[in-house]
Amino acid sequence: MVQVAVMGHGVVGSGVVEVIMNHRDGIMKRSDAELNVKYILDIREFPDSPYADKFTKNFDDILNDDEVKVVAEVMGGVHPAYDFTKACLLAGKSVVTSNKELVATKGAELLQIAKDNNVNYLFEASVGGGIPIIRPISLCLAANEVIEVAGILNGTTNFILAKMIKDSMSFEDALKMAQQLGYAERNPAADVEGHDACRKICILASLCYGKHIYPEFVHTQGITKMTLADVAYAASWGGVVKLIGQVKKLDDGKLDITVEPMLIEKSSQLAGVDDVFNGILVRGDSTGDVVFYGKGAGKLPTASAVVADIIDCVKHLKERKFVFWEDGDGSLVKPYEKTEYPIYIRAEAEDKKAAAEKAAELFPDMKVIVRADAGENEFAFVTGSMKVADQEKTIAALEAAGVTVQSKIRIAADL
Amino acid sequence: MVQVAVMGHGVVGSGVVEVIMNHRDGIMKRSDAELNVKYILDIREFPDSPYADKFTKNFDDILNDDEVKVVAEVMGGVHPAYDFTKACLLAGKSVVTSNKELVATKGAELLQIAKDNNVNYLFEASVGGGIPIIRPISLCLAANEVIEVAGILNGTTNFILAKMIKDSMSFEDALKMAQQLGYAERNPAADVEGHDACRKICILASLCYGKHIYPEFVHTQGITKMTLADVAYAASWGGVVKLIGQVKKLDDGKLDITVEPMLIEKSSQLAGVDDVFNGILVRGDSTGDVVFYGKGAGKLPTASAVVADIIDCVKHLKERKFVFWEDGDGSLVKPYEKTEYPIYIRAEAEDKKAAAEKAAELFPDMKVIVRADAGENEFAFVTGSMKVADQEKTIAALEAAGVTVQSKIRIAADL
Repeated sequence: MVQVAVMGHGVVGSGVVEVIMNHRDGIMKRSDAELNVKYILDIREFPDSPYADKFTKNFDDILNDDEVKVVAEVMGGVHPAYDFTKACLLAGKSVVTSNKELVATKGAELLQIAKDNNVNYLFEASVGGGIPIIRPISLCLAANEVIEVAGILNGTTNFILAKMIKDSMSFEDALKMAQQLGYAERNPAADVEGHDACRKICILASLCYGKHIYPEFVHTQGITKMTLADVAYAASWGGVVKLIGQVKKLDDGKLDITVEPMLIEKSSQLAGVDDVFNGILVRGDSTGDVVFYGKGAGKLPTASAVVADIIDCVKHLKERKFVFWEDGDGSLVKPYEKTEYPIYIRAEAEDKKAAAEKAAELFPDMKVIVRADAGENEFAFVTGSMKVADQEKTIAALEAAGVTVQSKIRIAADL
Repeated sequence: MVQVAVMGHGVVGSGVVEVIMNHRDGIMKRSDAELNVKYILDIREFPDSPYADKFTKNFDDILNDDEVKVVAEVMGGVHPAYDFTKACLLAGKSVVTSNKELVATKGAELLQIAKDNNVNYLFEASVGGGIPIIRPISLCLAANEVIEVAGILNGTTNFILAKMIKDSMSFEDALKMAQQLGYAERNPAADVEGHDACRKICILASLCYGKHIYPEFVHTQGITKMTLADVAYAASWGGVVKLIGQVKKLDDGKLDITVEPMLIEKSSQLAGVDDVFNGILVRGDSTGDVVFYGKGAGKLPTASAVVADIIDCVKHLKERKFVFWEDGDGSLVKPYEKTEYPIYIRAEAEDKKAAAEKAAELFPDMKVIVRADAGENEFAFVTGSMKVADQEKTIAALEAAGVTVQSKIRIAADL
């Protein structure tokens, strides 16, 4: 019988206990090992819980109990989750987590401590909720060089964009709806500003390329400026706008890593990922494109991924999994202004005809796109691939000619 | 240094050697173990191969070499692959394979032998080519009851159907094109009659439900009777026709398992799986729907999955993976005539109006659907859910009233 502790009894934490208790027979059968939740750590009181006798407010109860071999950290946030995780690993306990913020900011250090203490630090639930993605990348794709990973990694923003695309709802109304449905938090910044997606692409990039990519190395832009005009132009171009977290290995060995809204073609496997779903494309040199799709969040999907990691630890108590990356200093990352890609631009000008001519002169590969109900002074176009620094210079030149650029959105030509 | 043997130097086998040799550095880095291909078994001569010195025609060279710890069986077919695999496992060598026919017909026996000899028998490449699916199901979804698996498991038939749907090509022309492109074999029966998809759903069902489901337990129907008329009606109904391999756990604990063309709604994640791609939906009680998409066949994708299994064996030389199922006698499978589902019917009658009235009387929940360019005497409708036995009786009654039923296709209402 392996004793497990669950730190945190919020949405995911209560789900972890529920999944273990509901699936004990199946888990026992499959894992050849019995497991039991011995402690649940939370500072709150849960007197009505059927597991009331397991609750503790004292982390030392877990730390000092040698019977506890596996700890699930589902508290979220960096402190005290970081300190607790570190202490558990140092004490020879394996830790599994859904805490993407912690993995994205402290992963390399915690993985090294796990290695030094011959225990595991697993985090399948930190990306894609219930979608298996960490393990498929690290195991199944072991025989591939990963050329690119691109994903819809945040369900909340995808829900908002889907409402804008399908129901012509404004960003503000769609956000309100997401909050009413419980998909978005009262302070939605971590989602709508792209920080959540950034943490996830950092974890995937670190896993694929072996060095920690910290969030501060990554150009991150959310969806707060997205308008229905842009959504309509995307449709007329033949695609949709999605918030994409992407990392691509460039020919010079550097990584083009970013989180930003992108225009993707209708035929892309990511274009059909709607509502709160996530979709992650992994492009390997041998395997080609593989796409993983499912619920990226939610109590039971996320909890079941945490429990799968617990089972894996219980099965391999004396053996380390090979999930690992070294610390990184950002030198792998191509500076954002040096990356290049095509863009979509929407602009306004008093003299639309003259402005469009100026745009055609400044952006030689540009193609005008149109939409129904466009404003009188509005025009839009897409360009060929350009360095970000050149995009900015050229846009400045366009604006100097009396044009107001209202949107610039990256085009993901290869998704 | 772990020595590996590759049995078979066809498309997949040569890919396995290529992937290992191209990725040696990355594999070494990731797996903390060096591996080397010591033998390649084939009865043919490959004098120009850069690995000519590794070839042998004598299986005993591999069997009797204690240095060889892992063997990749990529010969295909049941004999002699079965005998060779068995001998290797009995000799304490782990075996990995892409051979779905062997796993589907002899899996339980070979898994038992592997267990008894404390070695591994892994077959990630047997389903979905380069798509990770066996490992995600067995590991990541360990904390789920799998309610249903449904997939587009055969790229050749999916290519043919996509050509029919998108380019209004006839079945015969699309098959010819698939043959010209090398997607279909000269004798295409295993693909177009559904046998290949059947082997794959058998493997997935055995894995999910713990008992071997043999192909002979599974109702299997191919796509040879598919017509452009049916494709057009499917579109007017709001969906597409796909060849689906499906296993569903019913309330009575039995499995509804089948391979047959099905009408699926446009909004289904499987509807967008085109060309030679595969897509597999796994529905778990905790995780909800998870979909895996990618190239289901091809030299490098399949080879990379084989190599991933080799790496896994090398990493865990002294430890067994928990991929296992017992033998099965078919008692888990619901007899096909007792399963129930809605159907689409296309029929012809001299007096179309009277026939439609008769159909409405016999199938009380039916809804007529129409298409452009329908034949003068043609009509079509969809029904509510009915037992297969009742479908057959009711169709017989309709035919007794002078109606000729030309197509009956299952509707997958839940995909």
